[in-house]
Amino acid sequence: MALKKAGVLGATGSVGQRFILLLSNHPEFEIHALGASSRSAGKAYKDAVTWKQTDLLPESAKSILVEECKPEGNFAECDVVFSGLDADVAGDIEKAFKEAGKVVISNAKNYRREADVPLVVPIVNPEHLSVVEKKVQEAKAAGKPKPGVIVCISNCSTAGLVAPLKPLVDAYGPIDALTTTTLQAISGAGFSPGVSGIDVLDNIVPFISGEEEKMEWETRKILGGTNKEGTEFVPLPYEQMKVSAQCNRVAVSDGHTECISFRFANRPAPSVEQIKQTMRDYVCDATKLGCPSAPKQTIHVLEENDRPQPRLDRDRDAGYAVSVGRVREDPVLDFKMVVLSHNTIIGAAGAGILIAEILKAKNVI
Amino acid sequence: MALKKAGVLGATGSVGQRFILLLSNHPEFEIHALGASSRSAGKAYKDAVTWKQTDLLPESAKSILVEECKPEGNFAECDVVFSGLDADVAGDIEKAFKEAGKVVISNAKNYRREADVPLVVPIVNPEHLSVVEKKVQEAKAAGKPKPGVIVCISNCSTAGLVAPLKPLVDAYGPIDALTTTTLQAISGAGFSPGVSGIDVLDNIVPFISGEEEKMEWETRKILGGTNKEGTEFVPLPYEQMKVSAQCNRVAVSDGHTECISFRFANRPAPSVEQIKQTMRDYVCDATKLGCPSAPKQTIHVLEENDRPQPRLDRDRDAGYAVSVGRVREDPVLDFKMVVLSHNTIIGAAGAGILIAEILKAKNVI
Amino acid sequence: MALKKAGVLGATGSVGQRFILLLSNHPEFEIHALGASSRSAGKAYKDAVTWKQTDLLPESAKSILVEECKPEGNFAECDVVFSGLDADVAGDIEKAFKEAGKVVISNAKNYRREADVPLVVPIVNPEHLSVVEKKVQEAKAAGKPKPGVIVCISNCSTAGLVAPLKPLVDAYGPIDALTTTTLQAISGAGFSPGVSGIDVLDNIVPFISGEEEKMEWETRKILGGTNKEGTEFVPLPYEQMKVSAQCNRVAVSDGHTECISFRFANRPAPSVEQIKQTMRDYVCDATKLGCPSAPKQTIHVLEENDRPQPRLDRDRDAGYAVSVGRVREDPVLDFKMVVLSHNTIIGAAGAGILIAEILKAKNVI
Amino acid sequence: MALKKAGVLGATGSVGQRFILLLSNHPEFEIHALGASSRSAGKAYKDAVTWKQTDLLPESAKSILVEECKPEGNFAECDVVFSGLDADVAGDIEKAFKEAGKVVISNAKNYRREADVPLVVPIVNPEHLSVVEKKVQEAKAAGKPKPGVIVCISNCSTAGLVAPLKPLVDAYGPIDALTTTTLQAISGAGFSPGVSGIDVLDNIVPFISGEEEKMEWETRKILGGTNKEGTEFVPLPYEQMKVSAQCNRVAVSDGHTECISFRFANRPAPSVEQIKQTMRDYVCDATKLGCPSAPKQTIHVLEENDRPQPRLDRDRDAGYAVSVGRVREDPVLDFKMVVLSHNTIIGAAGAGILIAEILKAKNVI
Repeated sequence: MALKKAGVLGATGSVGQRFILLLSNHPEFEIHALGASSRSAGKAYKDAVTWKQTDLLPESAKSILVEECKPEGNFAECDVVFSGLDADVAGDIEKAFKEAGKVVISNAKNYRREADVPLVVPIVNPEHLSVVEKKVQEAKAAGKPKPGVIVCISNCSTAGLVAPLKPLVDAYGPIDALTTTTLQAISGAGFSPGVSGIDVLDNIVPFISGEEEKMEWETRKILGGTNKEGTEFVPLPYEQMKVSAQCNRVAVSDGHTECISFRFANRPAPSVEQIKQTMRDYVCDATKLGCPSAPKQTIHVLEENDRPQPRLDRDRDAGYAVSVGRVREDPVLDFKMVVLSHNTIIGAAGAGILIAEILKAKNVI
Repeated sequence: MALKKAGVLGATGSVGQRFILLLSNHPEFEIHALGASSRSAGKAYKDAVTWKQTDLLPESAKSILVEECKPEGNFAECDVVFSGLDADVAGDIEKAFKEAGKVVISNAKNYRREADVPLVVPIVNPEHLSVVEKKVQEAKAAGKPKPGVIVCISNCSTAGLVAPLKPLVDAYGPIDALTTTTLQAISGAGFSPGVSGIDVLDNIVPFISGEEEKMEWETRKILGGTNKEGTEFVPLPYEQMKVSAQCNRVAVSDGHTECISFRFANRPAPSVEQIKQTMRDYVCDATKLGCPSAPKQTIHVLEENDRPQPRLDRDRDAGYAVSVGRVREDPVLDFKMVVLSHNTIIGAAGAGILIAEILKAKNVI
Repeated sequence: MALKKAGVLGATGSVGQRFILLLSNHPEFEIHALGASSRSAGKAYKDAVTWKQTDLLPESAKSILVEECKPEGNFAECDVVFSGLDADVAGDIEKAFKEAGKVVISNAKNYRREADVPLVVPIVNPEHLSVVEKKVQEAKAAGKPKPGVIVCISNCSTAGLVAPLKPLVDAYGPIDALTTTTLQAISGAGFSPGVSGIDVLDNIVPFISGEEEKMEWETRKILGGTNKEGTEFVPLPYEQMKVSAQCNRVAVSDGHTECISFRFANRPAPSVEQIKQTMRDYVCDATKLGCPSAPKQTIHVLEENDRPQPRLDRDRDAGYAVSVGRVREDPVLDFKMVVLSHNTIIGAAGAGILIAEILKAKNVI
Repeated sequence: MALKKAGVLGATGSVGQRFILLLSNHPEFEIHALGASSRSAGKAYKDAVTWKQTDLLPESAKSILVEECKPEGNFAECDVVFSGLDADVAGDIEKAFKEAGKVVISNAKNYRREADVPLVVPIVNPEHLSVVEKKVQEAKAAGKPKPGVIVCISNCSTAGLVAPLKPLVDAYGPIDALTTTTLQAISGAGFSPGVSGIDVLDNIVPFISGEEEKMEWETRKILGGTNKEGTEFVPLPYEQMKVSAQCNRVAVSDGHTECISFRFANRPAPSVEQIKQTMRDYVCDATKLGCPSAPKQTIHVLEENDRPQPRLDRDRDAGYAVSVGRVREDPVLDFKMVVLSHNTIIGAAGAGILIAEILKAKNVI
C-alpha cells in the first residue's frame, strides 16, 4: 500500500524533531516535506537542524531539502501536515495550509479554542474527529474539493490528566470537581533555550506561563460534547466541572507527573477497586481500530506504592499509554491518584501521529 | 549570663549534625553532651562523625567525647536535651531522659500523638508549650523536683503547611478543607543512605512512607486546642477540618515546596488581598519574645509569579521563616498558593532550637 | 536449537537484574536458575526482588523460585552461570561453582588478578578467552570431565578506556603513557543504597574507592598478553605503559564519560585523521563471529564538537558500542579525546552476556 | 573614610548582579552608577533586572537609575568601573571608559591578551598590577591627568588552576607539563539562557566553546612575567610550559572542579608532603595587605579522600579561597590532585572586587 505523504512544519524545533523520528519507518506515512524558517530553507535537513534526540537523525531525513512553511512545493503534495510551529507564527501559517485544503495536525495552542476545531487526545476523545470527518464527507458528497481542516493536539499536561478520567466519566458519570498539581518535565519547553539549567538544578519553578489556564479550560472541551448539528464543540460549563491546576517545572527530562483528586457528581461514588478496574479495562478506539502506534494497554494501573515514576514508567507502550498509581480515597474529594504521561509522545508529537492514524483509518487522510 | 547546657542525642546523624551547627556560637546554649550509639561512644566527636554539612565542623565540637544515650555522665548536667534519634530507638531513650527529669526536645515521631505531649512548630503554636510550662510551675509550687517533659517537633512537611494557615485561621475562622501536594527535598531523609541518587535523578518518587498520614493528623493537632484543664491536647476532629496530602520526593537538596488549596468554613470568604495582608502582618510569638533565632519576618509573601523557589528562597531569615507565593483564588476550594519552608531548619533541628529558646524565655529551661 | 541453560548469582541485585533483562528473549540462552541470599531463597523471584529497571520485570522470570547460591538444584544443570555477586561473598561462591565444573562469568573483582583467569572486555580482548578454551579442549582430548572456569568482566570504567585503545595499539604500537579523568554514572554503584542522592545533587564526588587502582592495573592486563604456554596472563609492565586515572562520581544515571590523553611509544605518531579512521574501521571479533549482542559498529567516532554526551549517546548499538569524540592533538601527550561507554552494558552485565556468546561460538559453553 | 564610587557595566546580567551583591555593604566601595543596554536605561534597577540570586536584591540598589554604558552621567564620577559586559559589546565600551580615564576591571575576554593589560587572579599574581600602578604613578609624577587602565579578570576555570600552582612554582621552580580536566558549573554561563536544562540533566557536555584555549594560554600569561621595562607582559613560551585542558559542563550550580596533573622541570621533584605544606603555608598578597575580601586561608588542603566537593566546599572564605584535595603522586607526570574554586567569586565578580581592593591599597584607585 502506498504510504501517505506527510509534511512537518517547524521541522528543526523540538516538536518537529520528534515528528520526524516518529514518521521515519512509519508503516503508513512517509516524510515528504520539511518546513522551517527562511533561515533554514534551502538547506539539507541535516545542515539546518541541531539534532538533540537520543535516537540518531534518521538517514531518510538527512538530505531532505528544507522549504519555507508555505502550502506549495513538496507541501502541495502532502496528504497530512504536522505542525510543531511556535505559537507566534503558527496562526498565519496553519491558516494558509488549511485554506489550501490541507489536513493540519497542530501542536500549537492557536486554534485550540475555535468552536469547530477538534482538540484531541487520541486515546481519549477521537470521537471529536467526527466534526472534521463530517465536513470532508459532506464536501465529497457535494462533489466539492476536499476542505482543509485543522485538528489541535492538546496541551501536554492536559493529555495526562484527561486520559484516566475518560473511562471513569463514561462509567460513573460526570466529575464535578478536579484538582491537579503537576510536576512537569523540561523537554516540553523545547531546547533553544528551553528551561534554563540553573532554574531546575536543586530547584523547582512553581509556575509555567499559561499552563494552568490551558489545563482548566481544555479539560472541559475534551470531556465535553458538540452541538446538536455536530459541527461545533461545547465545553462543559465551569459550574458542571470545576478544575483547578497548579503547575510546577521540575528536574525531569521526559514525563509529566500529576497528583490529582476528583469527585463524582453522582452519589454514591464507586469504590477504589471499581475505578481501578474501569481504568484497567479501558481500550481506546485507536487500539480497536488497529492503529499502528496505539497502546496495547491504554492505562497501566500500578499497585506498587511508589509508582509511577517518570524514569521508570514513562516509556510504557512507547509513550502512548499513561500510568496511574496510588489510587486511594481522598479526605476532601472522592479519590486521589498519581498519573504519569510522556509529554512529548502522548502529550505532543506522538499524539499528532496517532490522530493521523485515526484519520487515515476513517479515510479523512 | 551563663549559657544553658545542651545535650544532643543521635549526634552523628543528619539531624544531630544540624543541632550541633545551630548550637555552636549560640548566645543562650552551649553543647555539653553528645550521645550516639555504643559504636561511637568513647570517641572524640570528630572521629565518630562523617560530617556532611556545608559549614565546617565547629572547632568547639570536635573533641567532645561521644557518650552513650543515657541520662547520666555529662547528660546529667544538661538543662535541655535535643533528640535527633531514629524512631526505632527514640522511644525508650527519650522516655528514660524524661523520667530522669530532663527537658527533651525531639525530632522523632514516637511521642507526637501522646495526649499530653506538645507537638510544636515554634512559629505557629508556641502556646501549646503552656501544657509543659504548667507542669513545671505546679511542681515548683508544690516543692517537687522539676518534672521531665518531652516536646515534639512536627514532621518537616507539616511545619511548612501550618505556618501560613495559623494567622488565617486566627483572622477568618476555621479551614474546613485543605489539600496539599508536596515536592520534598532529600535532606529530610538523612544521608546513610538517605534517598538513593538513582531515585531522584531525572525522576520523582510519588511516595514517602507515613508522610501523608502524619501531615493529615499533625495539622489537626497543631491547629487544635487543649481540654479545659489545659493538660491534654484535643486535635480538631476530622469532620471539622479535612486534610488531604499527596507527598513526592524530588531532586532538591533543602526546602520543601507545597502546592496547597483550602476553604474557610465561614462565608463569605476573605479576599486574596486580605489573606496576603494577614500573612504579611503575622509576627510569631518567638519574635515578640526576642528569641535569638526567631525570624524577623515570619511569612514572606512574594509577588513574583514564579516564586517561591527552593534554591532562591529557602534561606530567608536563616531558614526560620516560610515563603508564600502565587496566592490566588481556587476554582474548587477558596484559595490556592505555594508554600516553601526549609525542612531541616523550621522543619526539624532549627524548630527544636527555637522551641528551646521559647522555653528558656518562659523559664522552663 | 536448544537454548543453553543460564544461572544468575546475585539475582536480586543491580547487576543481577540487568543479567535477567538481557537473558530474557535471548536467542541463545534461557534463565534456568536464580540465586540470591538465604533471605530470598525459596521465594518467587518477583517477590524477592525490588525491581528498579526501566523495562518491566520479564514475565518469564517472575515465578522462578530463587535458590541459594550453591552449585546444586537448578544450578547443577546450568551451562553457564553469570555472577553479579558483591565482592564480599563472590570469592567463596564463585570458587565453589568453578570446582563444580561450571563456566562462571563474573562481574566481581575477586579473581580479576589471578594469573590464569581471563579479564575480558568482549569487544577488546576476546582472544584472552583462549586460555580457558584450551583448558576445556585439553580436558576433552584427555577424556576428562569438563573443567570449571572463571572469566572476569572488567571494571566498568576500564571497559570504556581500553575499547578505543585496542585498534590503535594494534595499528600503531604500544601506548607508553595514558591519563584518564572519569565522570562516572551512579548506576554502577547499585541501588541499595548505591550513591546517595545528596552526594550527587549539585555536586561531584572526586573519589570512587579502589577505582583508580583497578583502571591503572586492569588496562595493563587487558592490553597485555600471555606466557609462551598460553596458560597465564602477563600484564604489560608499568614501565612500558604508565596509566594514571582520576575518578569522579557525577549526576548521570547511565554512561561513563572519560577524558583521556595518550602517547604512542613509536615516533612519529600517526595523525588525528589516521587514528580516527583506525577506530572507525575496527570490527571486534564478536561482530565477526556473528554474536547476537555484538555491536554493528564497535566504535562510533563522532565529529560534532560537543559529543559524545551520556544521555544522547550511551545507547548506541544497545550499549555494546563505545562512542569517541573530540579527537585532537594534546599539548602534553600525543592525543586527547572523550570516550563514552555504557557502564551497565559493555561495562558490566552486557559484557558478561557477550562473553558467553563468544564462548558459545567457540564451543566452550 | 569616604567610600570610593563604583560603577557596574552590564549590571542586569549574571556577573553584574554578583558585582552588585558584593558591593552592597562593602567597607570601601559604594555603588554609584549602573549601566546596561538602552532597553534598560532610564529604569530603576529593580524594574530593569530579573534578579536570580539567593541573596535578595540589596535595598540600596533597587532604585538606582540604570544608565547607558557611556563614561558620562554618574559614571563620570566613578573611581572604579566593574564590567560584566558580554564580549560582543565589551570591546568598544571598555575602551571608551579607559579613554575617559577610568580604572576598568573587566570580566570580559576582549583585552586579556593585550600586552600591556594585566590578566589577574588576585590571590595569584597581584604583582602584575604593577604595570598599571607604574603608569598611574608616572602620569602623576609628570603632572598629567590620571590615565585610564583596563585590568582583566581571568577566565573562571583558569583561576582555579593557577591558584595552587603559584606557590609551588615559587618554591620548586617551573612546571613544564600540566593537564587539567574540568567539571564546570553552569552558573558561569549566565542565565539568559545560559546552559539549557536538558543539556545537564542526567548528562554532561564535554565541550565549552573557547574554554580550553583560554586555559592553555592564560595560564602562561598569569604565571609569566614582564619585559625588562615592566611595561608589557611576556607569557611563558609554550615549550617551557605545556598546558592541556579538557573542559566539561556538569550539573553543578556553583564551583568548578578540576582534576589536574603536573610535572616540575627540576629534578628531583619535591615530595607530596612538601607540596601540601607549601600550599598550606601560602598567604596571598591581598591577605597581607589586609584587603577586606581576601581569604584568611588562601588554599585549603583537605585530607579526606573524597574532598573537595562543590556543594560542601565552594564557599570556604566566602568563595575567595580555593580547596585542594587528593594530592598524590601521578604515574605519568609528577603529581595529581583535585582543585575546587568558586567560579563566580574568585573566578569572576569576586576576583574583580579583590583586584579593586588591592588597587585601592596601592592608591591606584
